[in-house]
Amino acid sequence: MNCDRTSKYLKISREIISQIESGALQPGHKIYSENELINEFNISNTTARKILSYVENEGWAKKIKGKGTFVINRSKEMHLNRILGSFDAMKESFRDNLIKEGLTPKDILLEKIILNDGISINVNNKNHVIEGKVLKLHRLRYANDVLMKDETRYISMAVCPDIHLIETDDSLIHLYEKKYRIRLSDIQRKISTKVVHPKEEGNFFDNTTPMAVFVLSGVALGDRSETIEIEHSLYRGDKYSFTINTKPDLC
Amino acid sequence: MNCDRTSKYLKISREIISQIESGALQPGHKIYSENELINEFNISNTTARKILSYVENEGWAKKIKGKGTFVINRSKEMHLNRILGSFDAMKESFRDNLIKEGLTPKDILLEKIILNDGISINVNNKNHVIEGKVLKLHRLRYANDVLMKDETRYISMAVCPDIHLIETDDSLIHLYEKKYRIRLSDIQRKISTKVVHPKEEGNFFDNTTPMAVFVLSGVALGDRSETIEIEHSLYRGDKYSFTINTKPDLC
Repeated sequence: MNCDRTSKYLKISREIISQIESGALQPGHKIYSENELINEFNISNTTARKILSYVENEGWAKKIKGKGTFVINRSKEMHLNRILGSFDAMKESFRDNLIKEGLTPKDILLEKIILNDGISINVNNKNHVIEGKVLKLHRLRYANDVLMKDETRYISMAVCPDIHLIETDDSLIHLYEKKYRIRLSDIQRKISTKVVHPKEEGNFFDNTTPMAVFVLSGVALGDRSETIEIEHSLYRGDKYSFTINTKPDLC
Repeated sequence: MNCDRTSKYLKISREIISQIESGALQPGHKIYSENELINEFNISNTTARKILSYVENEGWAKKIKGKGTFVINRSKEMHLNRILGSFDAMKESFRDNLIKEGLTPKDILLEKIILNDGISINVNNKNHVIEGKVLKLHRLRYANDVLMKDETRYISMAVCPDIHLIETDDSLIHLYEKKYRIRLSDIQRKISTKVVHPKEEGNFFDNTTPMAVFVLSGVALGDRSETIEIEHSLYRGDKYSFTINTKPDLC
């Protein structure tokens, strides 16, 4: 009986690990909760807890208090893949994604200023404008001390008054939704690519040879089509890829 | 009366042109048909035809027989933007897109061979495999004599028998759907970026300085999850951008 239970917990643990190895469960994704394990495999909560500990202790996942257990990025090259086109995925915080993947985020704030005369950007051949005061936030975003993203965001202070007084460590998108009660209706991103050269002016990456970067520019619109945020960021091309899954429209 | 009609046709023509200039109507997009103009503006078919001719003669659009009138790409730098994430847009043919934008497509077939032992690719951390015979098609795809895309596609000959005997000038996706009656259920694309150096082996672009290219790899799956096609292509980074529009899931 005891022997049976042991092998069951090991069997299930190894099944989960093999799902991670095959890529069916990806870095940053949540693995089963205790309750899901209990229901799915008809096991006790002790066994469920043992399974989650086993997978974590073997270095495949990380438990984050109150959030769940997440698959860790074990690739030594720290290659990150991000999904585009899914509204929920687009809303995920850069920082939370790294934590869920077992990486250590760090931000350096380069600039936080208020621009008085608005700003505009062209995405998808359309001009998007934020009028009036705009908070400009320029941050260098690191994972395990490697600069992953050179991020500049411009936030409408008409839509988000006093946002310059708030600590912006957390997800800005969550801030818009929770503090300012804004319903995002549309997130548009344009991806270009360019070469950044070592020691080029304005290049914060530490590349020693010419490196390709992704240039993401985009807008987030509210439900009255107002422009809430304009973003212009560089992602290092040797660490990032983006995935788009397209299925026929069923609606 | 006559004067009124003249100003009406000019007014509507200019309205359409200003929509093109503002980007609301984009290169490759269809502008109003004669019938749409008649219904929308309550005008005669003579006036509608005059409007379409005016917009075309001013160099903003091009009539393609039996298909409609399409907005031309007037940018001298020939910058092309492609939309990702929309199933219909993903299915559009590379060649047709260029023609609709007023550009001249040309293909050079570098390789057309049958591989006997299948092929596999990793997209979105999942391995996709085509077993058995595979048609490899390596084409250089030009617009106005500029190499835009270095395209390699691998097609399952179990799913598409005798495809090597068919002229593949037309859209492959249309070929799968029309000749082979395959229903595509999922198109997955991964976008990476890298630098290609002048005269590097296997670099067919004519760049004289290091250039960033988009690397698109992807799979097209049928409705029984069978892998129909694997693609691995380079898009020149100085001419292309990709756009993704994300709205909340309403289904």
